[in-house]
Amino acid sequence: MPSPSADPDAFPTLYSGIQDFYARQMRCLDNGAAEEWSLTFTEDARMALPGLPQPLRGRDALASAVRRAARDLAERGEVHRHWHGMLSVDRLPDPAAVRASCYALVIATPRNSEPRLHRSCVCEDTLVRADGRWLVRERAVTRDDLP
Amino acid sequence: MPSPSADPDAFPTLYSGIQDFYARQMRCLDNGAAEEWSLTFTEDARMALPGLPQPLRGRDALASAVRRAARDLAERGEVHRHWHGMLSVDRLPDPAAVRASCYALVIATPRNSEPRLHRSCVCEDTLVRADGRWLVRERAVTRDDLP
Amino acid sequence: MPSPSADPDAFPTLYSGIQDFYARQMRCLDNGAAEEWSLTFTEDARMALPGLPQPLRGRDALASAVRRAARDLAERGEVHRHWHGMLSVDRLPDPAAVRASCYALVIATPRNSEPRLHRSCVCEDTLVRADGRWLVRERAVTRDDLP
Repeated sequence: MPSPSADPDAFPTLYSGIQDFYARQMRCLDNGAAEEWSLTFTEDARMALPGLPQPLRGRDALASAVRRAARDLAERGEVHRHWHGMLSVDRLPDPAAVRASCYALVIATPRNSEPRLHRSCVCEDTLVRADGRWLVRERAVTRDDLP
Repeated sequence: MPSPSADPDAFPTLYSGIQDFYARQMRCLDNGAAEEWSLTFTEDARMALPGLPQPLRGRDALASAVRRAARDLAERGEVHRHWHGMLSVDRLPDPAAVRASCYALVIATPRNSEPRLHRSCVCEDTLVRADGRWLVRERAVTRDDLP
Repeated sequence: MPSPSADPDAFPTLYSGIQDFYARQMRCLDNGAAEEWSLTFTEDARMALPGLPQPLRGRDALASAVRRAARDLAERGEVHRHWHGMLSVDRLPDPAAVRASCYALVIATPRNSEPRLHRSCVCEDTLVRADGRWLVRERAVTRDDLP
């Protein structure tokens, strides 16, 4: 949500804006809104994920990955929720960019069952502001279960 | 906590204020403070919960539900913690109201055991400000395990 | 991250600053950065933990406890992540101090396995500001599984 009245560079504005951004971005992912998800990244974004031989690059690749994941989950009858938490934000020399680091959980809920913790990860983002909105330019995710 | 020095309509004020509000409200729920919990809702509040044939309406109904839940948990020797996270906040045409959407977990801890994830939910609230405090006017909770 | 442009006493500044502080502090703990962890406490800090006969006092004791825990985890091949959430912040008569209360989870991930919820806790801190940074002066943690 754009916040015209606040100083966009004040720390509370950065911090709450990024929390809100992650909430909306992960909602897209968990709802399988592949197109909308891809638009939360810059056009040339790179996303390095564990288990992938090389980073995903660009919005088409990002959207395809979400479509595939959504199809797999629907077939298994499972809902996934991505939780970002324990966020820290650092300014970068480029005033339009910040470094955002957080912990990330994936909660998996099979139909008619209790949820389980599926993944515990660390997510390191470079975010840039464009037209008052945040976009991910670079994301690197590491999984706690992998050596 | 009222924050006289901040612009109440600035996004960081809304966002951090609602996070703080949820923390206090869920503390009431998890402590079985039924009366105090009910006072975090407007007098005419509606709360739609999975498994209930119709929404709870009004503070008496809300307080009774918490009293019942607290009694059940005490009998089972279990502690529940409600976690709200991944919050997004949208302004509404009514300047005294906002739409707050979040993910919600229930963590259950039996005595002398490790905790488990009991529920993964989505919570959609309409919040209104009264005398500088947030109150829930309408809440709809959905559970990820139910089709 | 120091935020020179914001009013340090405004609620959003306090709230987001403490969230950011916890993220960094727990990163130290989970990375086994014992020295750096100890420097997030005042020199005379007290930390009361379940299972300890008496509170830890001072930075040396705090650093030693982290070194021991990190060694144990490395031997078991397990990663722990401390999540603080559901934070509420109260001002205190001393303008340089606040009371911060939150829920705390410990997520444990053995190598090549899914994570599990290891602990669900409540954490009550007295935080003080020194040179624009937060430090813990007093921390009391209680575990939901212990009577």
